[in-house]
Amino acid sequence: MHHSCVVRIATANKFVAKFVANLNLCISRRPLSWSAGAAAEAEAVASISCSGHGRAFLDGLIENGKPVCECNACYGGPDCSQLLPNCVADADSGDPLFLEPFWMKNSGRSTVVIPGWHRMSYDYSDNSYISQELEKNIRKLHAITKNAVTDGRYIVFGAGSTQLLNAAVYALSMNMSSPAKVVAEKPFYPNSSKQSSLSFMEMHHYWNNASKTTENVIEFVASPNNPDGNLKKAVLEGPSVKTIHDYAYYWPHYTAIPAPADEEVMIFTMSKLTGHAGSRFGWAIVKDKDIYENMLKYKSLADSGTSKDTQLRALKLIKVVLEDGGRGIFNFAYKTMRGRWTKLKHVLSLSKRFKLQEIPPAFCNYSRTVRGASPAFAWLKCAKEEDSNCHKVLHQEANILGREGRSFDAEDRYVRLSLVKSADDFNLLFDRLKELVYKEEQNQTTRSS
Amino acid sequence: MHHSCVVRIATANKFVAKFVANLNLCISRRPLSWSAGAAAEAEAVASISCSGHGRAFLDGLIENGKPVCECNACYGGPDCSQLLPNCVADADSGDPLFLEPFWMKNSGRSTVVIPGWHRMSYDYSDNSYISQELEKNIRKLHAITKNAVTDGRYIVFGAGSTQLLNAAVYALSMNMSSPAKVVAEKPFYPNSSKQSSLSFMEMHHYWNNASKTTENVIEFVASPNNPDGNLKKAVLEGPSVKTIHDYAYYWPHYTAIPAPADEEVMIFTMSKLTGHAGSRFGWAIVKDKDIYENMLKYKSLADSGTSKDTQLRALKLIKVVLEDGGRGIFNFAYKTMRGRWTKLKHVLSLSKRFKLQEIPPAFCNYSRTVRGASPAFAWLKCAKEEDSNCHKVLHQEANILGREGRSFDAEDRYVRLSLVKSADDFNLLFDRLKELVYKEEQNQTTRSS
Repeated sequence: MHHSCVVRIATANKFVAKFVANLNLCISRRPLSWSAGAAAEAEAVASISCSGHGRAFLDGLIENGKPVCECNACYGGPDCSQLLPNCVADADSGDPLFLEPFWMKNSGRSTVVIPGWHRMSYDYSDNSYISQELEKNIRKLHAITKNAVTDGRYIVFGAGSTQLLNAAVYALSMNMSSPAKVVAEKPFYPNSSKQSSLSFMEMHHYWNNASKTTENVIEFVASPNNPDGNLKKAVLEGPSVKTIHDYAYYWPHYTAIPAPADEEVMIFTMSKLTGHAGSRFGWAIVKDKDIYENMLKYKSLADSGTSKDTQLRALKLIKVVLEDGGRGIFNFAYKTMRGRWTKLKHVLSLSKRFKLQEIPPAFCNYSRTVRGASPAFAWLKCAKEEDSNCHKVLHQEANILGREGRSFDAEDRYVRLSLVKSADDFNLLFDRLKELVYKEEQNQTTRSS
Repeated sequence: MHHSCVVRIATANKFVAKFVANLNLCISRRPLSWSAGAAAEAEAVASISCSGHGRAFLDGLIENGKPVCECNACYGGPDCSQLLPNCVADADSGDPLFLEPFWMKNSGRSTVVIPGWHRMSYDYSDNSYISQELEKNIRKLHAITKNAVTDGRYIVFGAGSTQLLNAAVYALSMNMSSPAKVVAEKPFYPNSSKQSSLSFMEMHHYWNNASKTTENVIEFVASPNNPDGNLKKAVLEGPSVKTIHDYAYYWPHYTAIPAPADEEVMIFTMSKLTGHAGSRFGWAIVKDKDIYENMLKYKSLADSGTSKDTQLRALKLIKVVLEDGGRGIFNFAYKTMRGRWTKLKHVLSLSKRFKLQEIPPAFCNYSRTVRGASPAFAWLKCAKEEDSNCHKVLHQEANILGREGRSFDAEDRYVRLSLVKSADDFNLLFDRLKELVYKEEQNQTTRSS
């Protein structure tokens, strides 16, 4: 055995020891050394079976010497195999777990191994808080997706959209006596809410439906819009109007991409691209140098830059996206979201009581095809006069939890249902809606017979 | 060959392929599968030689197909072997790289392997933004270090001290018409600076040296103090005085630990404990439930919680600290800092021109011994009347970059010199100071002869 060798993993960690007992590595050329124990530990945890309705994590609670299964909503038991009775179908949050299976299938390509001494310094070697390699790969990502212009633009990193929005408002409000008012057309997702005078802006909807204004305002434009999935443009005009575009959902998963966006301040977030909401990573693409520098300043004052661990992981994930020109993840994501939307649309087409928003098919510059809608949220309307609180109707009659219209400065006749959660979540939501529509049909049959 | 097997790493990543060409894993029982490629990649990068004056990182800039060496200050060349001439001895920042060798020596125990699907959700399974396992381990850490009471206390996570300070000011200012004034005894480290009205508080020094006040104030107490390393207590009294204690340096590395701290709001940061400034992770220990909840609310509004990747890494690093009751890291860190201080003290004792601060030996409750000083910073005073700007003196006469007294609301006769950077940084600083003192002695000899 020319290249053979035996390395016994020595470890002081009992948990690992238990799992990797008698693990012998015989490696030719470059035997794994310091990383082998951590790799074996990660694989041991990943191999814990949770019946396809959950997963165990390295940092999960420990029971009987190993991390417990963390089950999807409505599943329980030590291995997540029990469907819990009468469990609410929670379609409230936009937790993008529909992408988890993609990363499970691509574990090998998407794993990062971080040694203890990785990037301990506050700064990268160019004295910035921003990984140049990650920035480069983000530019490539937009180039292949054709969803944003990055040539000659600046890029700032942040902990998700909310922080970047705060940073943008800070930067756009510089040289003003007070922060500009942030306004948005309704319905809109209230990224921030009123707080003490210490921090955070309040978001208002337009007043008087005026499109011209002389007041200092920042128009916030989310496109596709949260909650309704429509592509939007800024509508306010005037010399003192500034805009922030939130493109969290401007990916082939959720919408056709008509053209690369090219706005003053454009915010993207990894949460909705790769599904890694827990990593808190986003970026802004900025035209103006002063605004860029003031956003960097905000970030520096807020938290001295984004975690280097998170930036390393973002780099790895985005490299995986890029490896096949985005085909792997974009096909998976579009297929999943389109499938969910189609099922939902079909069952609700049988209802007179509930109406889904309309999103027409459109030509997608990324896929070079005309594509049907695949939004992140259903923006459901209760059509019957008496169903003035649609959230309540769904909750009481179908044990479904959506998010009320008022959260988006809209009528409570509307309710938002999240379609981006796990397959278990979506399936339960779908089954409950189907039952509800079935009951409606039965009632109609009963009445008409 | 009973347990033998051959697994050829298939990878689409050319960089890995280059490094792990012909890597054959023959593993008995549990062969590494999806983690092997990333582990091999990490080890390949770690094995790049940078002459002991730098290191290559996984996310470094790529040249000739592999990440470049990132050299310590004053070293250059492709493998960091060239000492750059006339390079400034930069002792400005508190970048805690003196701990890097500890983690390099303990790579095996401190590595984390993060699969692509790790913790994609916004929340942990208890719907919080806080890892329970990490919280548990932080409580253990304080118990073994005996530096803070955590029983019956709440713990909030944040992106380093600055964010937690902002969160604490936000929480302590609730139910007030305006944020309380934040004050500190000078010299103090200005954690935050005046900004637009959007965010961030300004820190003031006491006015009138009054210790009693009826105004709403928050006293900020850093202990050991930055810049001078003294242990401090709050001095303001009054019904409307609140306190925030910054215990960033309250670890056996930098000070004797007289007793466990037990204050209203206590802030700690990983930067100064393990040296991982780049990870941006800290925590606050809080007595009052309302203050705790409002700090959580701030965090939720600011960035929806701390990155799960960072929390996983913090967990791993703190577990390594705990494995041997802290002996490994605390001995290493104290020995290093004490050694630097002793050398510095010795050479400056020969000078009439420069005076170091005095920190008396004290009994340390952690080590159960009386220990000599080992502060993170030298707080140097230029004793000669004409040397009114000590920063300038060091810069012009010795090519040393410190931080001016005015940055700490003190006289410019003082300058802060960082002692926590890499060995290369400290050695250069020390050599320059030695030369300066040598010149002073020569001048005296010349004059007196």
